[in-house]
Amino acid sequence: MDAGAAPPLSAADGRVHARYWLETGDDPRRAAEVIAGEQSCGTFTAVPGETPALKARSGARIERLNILDHAEHPALPVLQASPRYTRCLLDLSWPMDNFGPSLPNLMATIAGNLFELRQVSGLRLLDLAVPAAFAAGCPGPAFGIEGTRRLAGVPRGPLIGTIVKPSVGLSPEETAATVRQLLAGGIDFIKDDELQADGPHCPFDERVRAVMREVHEAAQRTGRQAMVAFNLTGEIDQMRRRHDLVLSLGGSCVMASLNSLGLTGLLALRRHSQLPIHAHRNGWGYLNRHPALGWDYAPWQTLWRLAGADHLHVNGLANKFSEPDDSVIAAARAVLRPLHADHAMVAMPVFSSGQTGLQAAPTFAALGTTDLIHAAGGGIIGHPGGIAAGVAAMRQAWDAAVTGVPLPQHAATHPELAQALTAW
Amino acid sequence: MDAGAAPPLSAADGRVHARYWLETGDDPRRAAEVIAGEQSCGTFTAVPGETPALKARSGARIERLNILDHAEHPALPVLQASPRYTRCLLDLSWPMDNFGPSLPNLMATIAGNLFELRQVSGLRLLDLAVPAAFAAGCPGPAFGIEGTRRLAGVPRGPLIGTIVKPSVGLSPEETAATVRQLLAGGIDFIKDDELQADGPHCPFDERVRAVMREVHEAAQRTGRQAMVAFNLTGEIDQMRRRHDLVLSLGGSCVMASLNSLGLTGLLALRRHSQLPIHAHRNGWGYLNRHPALGWDYAPWQTLWRLAGADHLHVNGLANKFSEPDDSVIAAARAVLRPLHADHAMVAMPVFSSGQTGLQAAPTFAALGTTDLIHAAGGGIIGHPGGIAAGVAAMRQAWDAAVTGVPLPQHAATHPELAQALTAW
Repeated sequence: MDAGAAPPLSAADGRVHARYWLETGDDPRRAAEVIAGEQSCGTFTAVPGETPALKARSGARIERLNILDHAEHPALPVLQASPRYTRCLLDLSWPMDNFGPSLPNLMATIAGNLFELRQVSGLRLLDLAVPAAFAAGCPGPAFGIEGTRRLAGVPRGPLIGTIVKPSVGLSPEETAATVRQLLAGGIDFIKDDELQADGPHCPFDERVRAVMREVHEAAQRTGRQAMVAFNLTGEIDQMRRRHDLVLSLGGSCVMASLNSLGLTGLLALRRHSQLPIHAHRNGWGYLNRHPALGWDYAPWQTLWRLAGADHLHVNGLANKFSEPDDSVIAAARAVLRPLHADHAMVAMPVFSSGQTGLQAAPTFAALGTTDLIHAAGGGIIGHPGGIAAGVAAMRQAWDAAVTGVPLPQHAATHPELAQALTAW
Repeated sequence: MDAGAAPPLSAADGRVHARYWLETGDDPRRAAEVIAGEQSCGTFTAVPGETPALKARSGARIERLNILDHAEHPALPVLQASPRYTRCLLDLSWPMDNFGPSLPNLMATIAGNLFELRQVSGLRLLDLAVPAAFAAGCPGPAFGIEGTRRLAGVPRGPLIGTIVKPSVGLSPEETAATVRQLLAGGIDFIKDDELQADGPHCPFDERVRAVMREVHEAAQRTGRQAMVAFNLTGEIDQMRRRHDLVLSLGGSCVMASLNSLGLTGLLALRRHSQLPIHAHRNGWGYLNRHPALGWDYAPWQTLWRLAGADHLHVNGLANKFSEPDDSVIAAARAVLRPLHADHAMVAMPVFSSGQTGLQAAPTFAALGTTDLIHAAGGGIIGHPGGIAAGVAAMRQAWDAAVTGVPLPQHAATHPELAQALTAW
């Protein structure tokens, strides 16, 4: 959604600010007032205790209402048709006193009972800004980019990663055998698939033990320990126990499915964890895929960074899903943007889905940084020369991207890249 | 979405079954196979370890693919247009061995990376059936209808309820004063607004102490203790501590915002709680409002009942939101339908939003039960004779509904109802 010429949201006044794209068949000002009322002290009808003093203290405030354009038909089904629908940019703000520095309650405030309001025929949360006092009450990522680089032993350049496939169905020993091959190829980062957690066919504990044996064996050989993100998604006590096992076995990362955990679940994991949290966004499509409903990635990832996610998935350029490239880049930029001058809470974007070295140059051109994880499956294991050649070719493609050398030119002196270009 | 003539989902074969409405610009069988592959052992490209034996053991199975109709335009934005789009009913099943009896991991499986697939121009989860072994591993509601009736002292008929308003802005003492009036009116059930949890202006502990004083004082007078659902939404440790306070003060219900907690958060609360959990669905609109994307209520509430929700919001007939009545009734029926012969896990539907006694008869006609909470704000406090008359009129409207007497006829001998009919 185009936010037009509106300035970036700021929470410098100490209030929480949220930006929405709103479509309404009603008068836009009235619709905005209904939303502001519903999400603070108002309700459908005037009630006795809603005094002017209470409204001034606790009411949501309309900070901006810009008309963008009009439409003949509503974006979402409505009970009563209107002759036309107005699209607006709406900024609302709330006093922190309504909820305190509580992410779960912030969620209910900025994204509660408003999408289904009768006055609303389209509503999308575009952005979110929280004041310093709110951010200070949130844990944020414990490791972020620096901590991840340190634990993975990758001081510069992207972490070249991959995902264990098949997603589910491998036994712990089969998983370890796959990991062994990937480690032999010199990979920096490996993750479980989000479908693989602790099923009876591949129990978490056995998998971690088997995989960590391979990790340590490879590290002894190479002097550098690859980072493996073990998917510990589950109940709180299960996740704590699984985290402790990974930690005790010398592992350096855990992974969780955000939409399975919820904010409260991730906060509990974060409060316990001594390892970076690799956050998977599976299910993101149902939150995002209709442009007139739900969430942009910017406000969504803000919540998860405040809650403690160290790595956040952003899809990838030329991906195999339905997301356009500009959306992928906007997501990655959001993850890399400091939340606040005193609480940057920057996380590491994770690029994946149909990735090869061909995406290195455009990804770097768009972001200007290599502070990211670039995960490729077929792009690495499909290399005609094997996995080690696949990993080498990915690194060479990134070297070319960073130094501004065209891929074919770089390939002339890098045989793995040259061979990869015939396969990618 | 119309599921056509397909039979109800069954998990009698021990597998987890999910039903989707799917729209695709691709060949429907191929699209179904991509979804089944993506959500089990497959990925975009064939990988070495994906053997026929592994696929047979761990793959998702296409159980049904019924073509429903076609459309010229895609329901959701697509990267590449197709000449036409096919709408289908798709049933998939998974072996429980892929994830075990784990709700967070079931979520990643049935609602993970599939809504954004390139082959998908519309996808909606319509239904979910879990086998006995899965349900047996989930806590389910600890109180449900029977426990709620016992604690609220309402053996029959609906619980007549209301919500403290203004939603936020009242101090603990002001909240208690409002509650005092509602209790004096003979109300069965009171809940915090979902925006009111533990903000600095109305701290949870002070509010609970002040309100419980009123609850006990009223109970001493009337011999029956009204149920108050205190919104304890927050981090796990906060919720446990808040729950313990409510319990220690003799309270009988706690409330939480499901989309703030997530499944892992609710499971943690349920594992700790000794009180019924009143589950608020705020945010439901972003999951549901576009008919070609996201969630029907049936599968969504199944997850939360398995996780332990005792009361589930279903909106109300003739509500002030954009949800049609048939959707409200379908939601309430889903909440009341046993999940499984041996694990019914039935929860209590909560009707609210612009409710009055006028909705009693159509609600009862559609459900055939009074096992529900009927929450009205203006429908009670707006009564010309005051709150007690408002509560009485609500009860009278339900008596009329259950005995099949038209409201005007019943009003002839019930003055509170007669007066209410001039206001509703």
